[in-house]
Amino acid sequence: MPFVNIRITKEGATADQKRRLIEGVTDLLADVLGKNRKTTFVIIDEVDTDNWGIGGESVTELRGK
Amino acid sequence: MPFVNIRITKEGATADQKRRLIEGVTDLLADVLGKNRKTTFVIIDEVDTDNWGIGGESVTELRGK
Amino acid sequence: MPFVNIRITKEGATADQKRRLIEGVTDLLADVLGKNRKTTFVIIDEVDTDNWGIGGESVTELRGK
Amino acid sequence: MPFVNIRITKEGATADQKRRLIEGVTDLLADVLGKNRKTTFVIIDEVDTDNWGIGGESVTELRGK
Amino acid sequence: MPFVNIRITKEGATADQKRRLIEGVTDLLADVLGKNRKTTFVIIDEVDTDNWGIGGESVTELRGK
Amino acid sequence: MPFVNIRITKEGATADQKRRLIEGVTDLLADVLGKNRKTTFVIIDEVDTDNWGIGGESVTELRGK
Repeated sequence: MPFVNIRITKEGATADQKRRLIEGVTDLLADVLGKNRKTTFVIIDEVDTDNWGIGGESVTELRGK
Repeated sequence: MPFVNIRITKEGATADQKRRLIEGVTDLLADVLGKNRKTTFVIIDEVDTDNWGIGGESVTELRGK
Repeated sequence: MPFVNIRITKEGATADQKRRLIEGVTDLLADVLGKNRKTTFVIIDEVDTDNWGIGGESVTELRGK
Repeated sequence: MPFVNIRITKEGATADQKRRLIEGVTDLLADVLGKNRKTTFVIIDEVDTDNWGIGGESVTELRGK
Repeated sequence: MPFVNIRITKEGATADQKRRLIEGVTDLLADVLGKNRKTTFVIIDEVDTDNWGIGGESVTELRGK
Repeated sequence: MPFVNIRITKEGATADQKRRLIEGVTDLLADVLGKNRKTTFVIIDEVDTDNWGIGGESVTELRGK
């Protein structure tokens, strides 16, 4: 019954790409640890680039360089 | 001073229902563990059904079946 | 399929108290939002008092006052 | 490579204020623990006041008093 | 620069299994979204079975049935 | 009433260093956003180096290179 939270910047991931993330991570946990697919939860959070920082700068700033 | 994070799919929970969740979980922590209600935090995250997966599928797919 | 994360200080909560938290919060989500009990996840994190701060002080300091 | 998640109520924080939070917390981790600024991540979540509770009430209710 | 948090019950995952989870999820995000492997963070939390509930019961109880 | 979660690798941060993180981040939120220090929560999670990955490798592997 794993729980996985994936956080990415909000830059246009499609519903299909999100489906592939959900399927892929569920497969990975079944393959590596034998976890039950039925009770594997995955939540994807898409974060505004103003609200994500790396190296002391926001991603908005980094993208603008 | 407990901190509780409730994550649900974004499917129309009303402000009143959220108030009942906040009140109920605050009461529960006071009843079971004697926690101070004043410093109990509750945050509710509502997650798009495209962004929540269970059993390798998104909730959007599951709801459509 | 709600997911609930309860964070409390590590100060001796018993297995029975944790069971009551798990049961209580699962009941609450079923009562208020009609959520399926079978796919309600609850994770309790117990945090060392050195690692929890409120008002700019650690709980270890606050407890010592 | 620290990871910091700051959660605040959604009440109008500006992009500049968010930049100052990102910079400040990155500096703090470098100063106190010698952490590498380049691999310090900061994510800010802004939460609707209906979805944040303290003392058993939502922040929306508290603000209205 | 994705951030992934994997939560599993603490039931003996080995360092090698954890390495495979880290590598697999990093590959997945690069494959599906073109994310930079170098700035992909993965954190695995192992949770005591007393502290994880599903269907209103702790995993400790479920394992004992 | 901000909530801040700081995640670092478990590599010997002292109680004093944690106190400085708690104090520093509480000050930062008061300075930048005018947040009430009394209701600012900070939780520090220390993560085993086997359980933290960056660039597809665990920190244990990276430290050994």
